[in-house]
Amino acid sequence: MNCAILLISCPDQKGITASVANFVFQSNGNIVHADQHIDEQANTFFMRIEWTLTDFSLSREEIARAFSPIAEKFGMKWDLFFTDKSLKIAIFVSRHLHCLHDLLYRQRAGHIVCDMPLIISNHPDARGMAREFGIDFHEIPILRENKEEQERRQLEILEAKGIDLIVLARYHQILTKQFVDVFADKIINIHHSFLPAFAGRNPYSQAYQKGVKIIGATSHYVTEALDEGPIIEQDTVRISHRDALSDLVRKGEDLEKIVLSRAVRLYVQRKILRYGNKTVIFD
Amino acid sequence: MNCAILLISCPDQKGITASVANFVFQSNGNIVHADQHIDEQANTFFMRIEWTLTDFSLSREEIARAFSPIAEKFGMKWDLFFTDKSLKIAIFVSRHLHCLHDLLYRQRAGHIVCDMPLIISNHPDARGMAREFGIDFHEIPILRENKEEQERRQLEILEAKGIDLIVLARYHQILTKQFVDVFADKIINIHHSFLPAFAGRNPYSQAYQKGVKIIGATSHYVTEALDEGPIIEQDTVRISHRDALSDLVRKGEDLEKIVLSRAVRLYVQRKILRYGNKTVIFD
Amino acid sequence: MNCAILLISCPDQKGITASVANFVFQSNGNIVHADQHIDEQANTFFMRIEWTLTDFSLSREEIARAFSPIAEKFGMKWDLFFTDKSLKIAIFVSRHLHCLHDLLYRQRAGHIVCDMPLIISNHPDARGMAREFGIDFHEIPILRENKEEQERRQLEILEAKGIDLIVLARYHQILTKQFVDVFADKIINIHHSFLPAFAGRNPYSQAYQKGVKIIGATSHYVTEALDEGPIIEQDTVRISHRDALSDLVRKGEDLEKIVLSRAVRLYVQRKILRYGNKTVIFD
Amino acid sequence: MNCAILLISCPDQKGITASVANFVFQSNGNIVHADQHIDEQANTFFMRIEWTLTDFSLSREEIARAFSPIAEKFGMKWDLFFTDKSLKIAIFVSRHLHCLHDLLYRQRAGHIVCDMPLIISNHPDARGMAREFGIDFHEIPILRENKEEQERRQLEILEAKGIDLIVLARYHQILTKQFVDVFADKIINIHHSFLPAFAGRNPYSQAYQKGVKIIGATSHYVTEALDEGPIIEQDTVRISHRDALSDLVRKGEDLEKIVLSRAVRLYVQRKILRYGNKTVIFD
Repeated sequence: MNCAILLISCPDQKGITASVANFVFQSNGNIVHADQHIDEQANTFFMRIEWTLTDFSLSREEIARAFSPIAEKFGMKWDLFFTDKSLKIAIFVSRHLHCLHDLLYRQRAGHIVCDMPLIISNHPDARGMAREFGIDFHEIPILRENKEEQERRQLEILEAKGIDLIVLARYHQILTKQFVDVFADKIINIHHSFLPAFAGRNPYSQAYQKGVKIIGATSHYVTEALDEGPIIEQDTVRISHRDALSDLVRKGEDLEKIVLSRAVRLYVQRKILRYGNKTVIFD
Repeated sequence: MNCAILLISCPDQKGITASVANFVFQSNGNIVHADQHIDEQANTFFMRIEWTLTDFSLSREEIARAFSPIAEKFGMKWDLFFTDKSLKIAIFVSRHLHCLHDLLYRQRAGHIVCDMPLIISNHPDARGMAREFGIDFHEIPILRENKEEQERRQLEILEAKGIDLIVLARYHQILTKQFVDVFADKIINIHHSFLPAFAGRNPYSQAYQKGVKIIGATSHYVTEALDEGPIIEQDTVRISHRDALSDLVRKGEDLEKIVLSRAVRLYVQRKILRYGNKTVIFD
Repeated sequence: MNCAILLISCPDQKGITASVANFVFQSNGNIVHADQHIDEQANTFFMRIEWTLTDFSLSREEIARAFSPIAEKFGMKWDLFFTDKSLKIAIFVSRHLHCLHDLLYRQRAGHIVCDMPLIISNHPDARGMAREFGIDFHEIPILRENKEEQERRQLEILEAKGIDLIVLARYHQILTKQFVDVFADKIINIHHSFLPAFAGRNPYSQAYQKGVKIIGATSHYVTEALDEGPIIEQDTVRISHRDALSDLVRKGEDLEKIVLSRAVRLYVQRKILRYGNKTVIFD
Repeated sequence: MNCAILLISCPDQKGITASVANFVFQSNGNIVHADQHIDEQANTFFMRIEWTLTDFSLSREEIARAFSPIAEKFGMKWDLFFTDKSLKIAIFVSRHLHCLHDLLYRQRAGHIVCDMPLIISNHPDARGMAREFGIDFHEIPILRENKEEQERRQLEILEAKGIDLIVLARYHQILTKQFVDVFADKIINIHHSFLPAFAGRNPYSQAYQKGVKIIGATSHYVTEALDEGPIIEQDTVRISHRDALSDLVRKGEDLEKIVLSRAVRLYVQRKILRYGNKTVIFD
């Protein structure tokens, strides 16, 4: 069942819901999901609305044009998506392959409906897994002195493949501002701690040294500032004094996989609306 | 800020959201919350919409009349509430007072906005707590042979107080069908297990004997069938072989308090929509 | 670092800990883990003690003989294990392969230290995965009329491989009493519900129909009685009215994998002590 | 049933468990709880052992003397407690009274077995609650210029009452090094965040601004460094974009109460062993 999805944000005011719902109804759309949220502090209105295209009287090309006057009237920022347009995801990874493997498994199982045609790594470790799943693999080592050049290579490959979203599945390289700007709001990272605690390097080791009783994982948008982007999803698991550092790593792996895969699934389903340094999650 | 709330369910069809949103907008209402859900299996549409009454051009009396044609057109079951009409809650309790005490505390703290003018018990234990909080207390002992008569007394008291909701906060008596019918969809119970596991008597003891590694608590609507009504909220906590039965009771108390208070809060905020043996929770 | 492990249970009485600790100390053993538990209701003492074999003055053959007088004195049931004797695990599976795949992945990653040399199934679906991981695969279809004969074939294969533990990783066949007796306390199952709720067939469907707000998974020893064996590990995850049956299945898969892998890991580390219909978990 | 408890830590070496268990056994003690832990990184051994005093052949006065040679031999730091010596707890609080109220409730319910004879506050708000529970209340306002003097007053009162443990149940004052030194390892705080995230002022507001998807609470020993002491217990709860700051505060209150009460219970049961900036929790 093909659907259209509108993600909307604008200053809160009267009549938004009615206008959007009328827009869908007047062209004979059947709403299958609608949710809205108002951030009173920011006086901002957020909406996600999804309707079936069967019997819808506007063609895909006409929808955006027809919606524009409404968007203009309310000062909306908006995006229009179609559910049959499969998202193309590139996965970046370094040497820890559990998140990569988990994402590929879930995509194959149909739990994350998208294409995953590309794996890029600064190490060769993922080559075998890429081959096993029949996915293009590019090893692009990064050194301090060649980072910009290598990122240009990455961007060429990403463009050639028509990539819509980059998932950093334990990719231990900081992306430059130039790179991030090209894929603004289109890069998701998994950080293996309960951010903002233990940002940066070796979060499990930091957590172990600190003696916390719970560890976490965080999936977030990548911005210029390391581990500072808007948080999409987090989860935690209990540990005890009996857990050595290696136990934290082992228990954390399960968390990382679950948290990252939830975030990617939400993104693919267009259920995330970023605003400022926060996110609205339409679940 | 006074608001009106509509809770709606009807067969799913096109135009419902638009019609309801237009209804609010055309009389100059400002929507502060709107959420909907479609149960595809049951082909049923559910909606909760809340808007401010400030500047709303219809008086409270006119709202229901004006909405009726829409409701009729779509075959809606619907309820209209006003947020400044404080709900009157009676709490039934036997000898375990922790849930009673917790509810009173939360009501006083402003976390559950309602009136709690009445406590009814088949035992005298809660009398002191009732006095401390300045609440009417009725001890109405129940025996097999006087249950119907005593329930009639209870109903008289409930009616005299204008009670809207009965909360069974560990009230260890089974209500008759006649009683439940009078307060249909207006009685909430806390059961100290993860239903449907361990229904009936002594759930902690059942859980202990079974050797489960997790215990739970369940808040649900009361129906004729014991511990079978639609579930509103559940939560769980981990236990281990080290936990004696008394530890299960102690850990479970925290769960019971949290689960019951969440359910009561959801009810007071009109965020629960019962259908069949299930609930939609608009959080 | 090779270690010996003693798992002990006996009537509670004075001097047990001292006797066991002295036994280890007098032969120059270094205790790396010791934990005990007393079930006061059952007046039973449980202990797990693990010590390094480096510098231990008794040979492996002598340990059991030397320990026997202590065991006899206190009326102990006991088992002796050596950590360098890798456990051989056979995995039984039907058509859902996520738990199988997860176990193999964790074994490869070194998170579960054991051998997994055998996969048995009543369906052909796992053949590819077995080949991929280089593991012996036997497809043994089960019909009502050939079950006993097929189980005899299974037992032959299990014996030939020297299997120590059978893991039912979503194996949808009920084992006969005869089969279970051969591998008493050596068969672990994953059931995709929070037992004792939703035992038997289609637990996700049962949970969906019931309208629970939380689903669970349970790993337990297999006994004659279906889904009734002693529970080893459980976990739960929150769901909502928005979750269709397929979402319960998807969310449940993560639970199943985590719960089963924890149980297998505990078994491999000899941290489970079964008594009656319960377990002591020495974590 | 009166018991003695030994809490022990020392460099790891052979024979510790045997020596301690023998000590108890030889004087006819019955061990009711024994647990140990080895931190391999720190090469340190930790033990908690509890035995009944009924039939124990040493008087309380003799136990410490008799144990000293063992302690000396292994270089132990150790403490000896008797379960019938009720701990005296002073609660410090400012204006948020939910943790205070919860602790008093649990003490009354017998869930935390101790005396709570004293409440100290820099504000008058808790006076009513103190009166209600029949507890001594001292309002001691703190200003920058009188802090040392007021702390001296506090110390006098604490000494006069024979206080063993200070619980900061949302006491919004930083204690001086001098004060902390007097009650070293005897002050427990609740911080309303998942430390080390959001230390310092207004953690809920910090969490709200950051847009985290989970909030937490942390109970820890108080040291000189604000919110930096060894962590005893933590827990977390999920939030969403729908939660306003006031919802974080409300949900957090439940966490704070549970986390602080668990920590106090563990302390009262002598199940916490601090070492460096960490804790071993013998549950």
